[in-house]
Amino acid sequence: MSEIIIWTLDWVPEGPRGFVRDLRLRWACEEAGLHYSVRTVPFEGRETNHLSHQPFGQVPYLSDGDVEIFESGACLLHLARKSEKLMPRDALGEARTVQWLIAALNSMEMVTVPWWFLDMTGANENGLTGWVKSRLDHVERVLGEQQWLAANRFTVADLLMADVLRIPKVRAFGDRPATEAYVSRVTDRPAFEKARTDQLAHFAAGDRNRS
Amino acid sequence: MSEIIIWTLDWVPEGPRGFVRDLRLRWACEEAGLHYSVRTVPFEGRETNHLSHQPFGQVPYLSDGDVEIFESGACLLHLARKSEKLMPRDALGEARTVQWLIAALNSMEMVTVPWWFLDMTGANENGLTGWVKSRLDHVERVLGEQQWLAANRFTVADLLMADVLRIPKVRAFGDRPATEAYVSRVTDRPAFEKARTDQLAHFAAGDRNRS
Repeated sequence: MSEIIIWTLDWVPEGPRGFVRDLRLRWACEEAGLHYSVRTVPFEGRETNHLSHQPFGQVPYLSDGDVEIFESGACLLHLARKSEKLMPRDALGEARTVQWLIAALNSMEMVTVPWWFLDMTGANENGLTGWVKSRLDHVERVLGEQQWLAANRFTVADLLMADVLRIPKVRAFGDRPATEAYVSRVTDRPAFEKARTDQLAHFAAGDRNRS
Repeated sequence: MSEIIIWTLDWVPEGPRGFVRDLRLRWACEEAGLHYSVRTVPFEGRETNHLSHQPFGQVPYLSDGDVEIFESGACLLHLARKSEKLMPRDALGEARTVQWLIAALNSMEMVTVPWWFLDMTGANENGLTGWVKSRLDHVERVLGEQQWLAANRFTVADLLMADVLRIPKVRAFGDRPATEAYVSRVTDRPAFEKARTDQLAHFAAGDRNRS
């Protein structure tokens, strides 16, 4: 069996710790019981020094034997094909899981990440706030009717959607009880806590190596 | 063999014609030689009247026998599994195609569509312009070295990336010859022109039905 390697940075500042997207891949491997190791590329020079592995200069990327993949969403789909714990094996269950994974990336994160970027870079009025609220309203309606996004069970689509939703702090946009309960339900899973704790420890070790 | 149905709106105003995302699915079916039909949901009341099929009130969605899927990216992956013309069958070729399809959605469109939204809603200064330029620079570097994104041949990843890139008008952000040549190369394919012509005719017929 080939070895799964999750590639991330050797260090990041305090702010993004607990949020760097290698967490998604650690979490998926923990859920599926897949053995993996973590290796690093340097924070310094990250804009250019690993472009042959990740053409946008970001992390994570994944290697698995001869296959190397970037984009956390693509890495999650690759891992999901290795374990039914992440994605059902029937055609309908798989299609629903893929559709909600893509919805997390392209209907929700496409709005929340640029909103966060504008917020962070200090625009007076964030022109994307109304759009975030509208997307959250749609998700709230769905989650008022079902516990999980696909196939009536936890899948990799929930892992990704909950990870996307925990970043903008849903409550800051108003009261959406079903969505808040959903994010808690998914991130209360032991595999999330393991992945988060391991990522925090990884970057703390990076502090010691720099000093 | 089950029947592929692409669902779109019965009418849209002039502005989005030629860009509504059912075009991506028509184009993929044309490339693959898959038989399909197009059916419609009403433009009026679109915000709420087809939420049971597309929970964000958008189009397209796809039905294929018992499977119904929303999110154009997920629909494209579903179609790609039906034809090697859209995605190679070997593990590495498939992984590379999926990674670049997701990159089109989550590294490029995640920046260009919110940029376009802010531009359209008339922000004085578009806080996402620098980010769009940076992402385009990364893609320009890649396309300076290769003709196609994955597997040294046209795949569904090129279909999606070219569709994403033709919207913000690359030239408006500066001179990027490799990217411009790439968008031309991909959109010069007869299947794109067929899909675009069919979409324009579809919405023109919607004009006549409304008058």
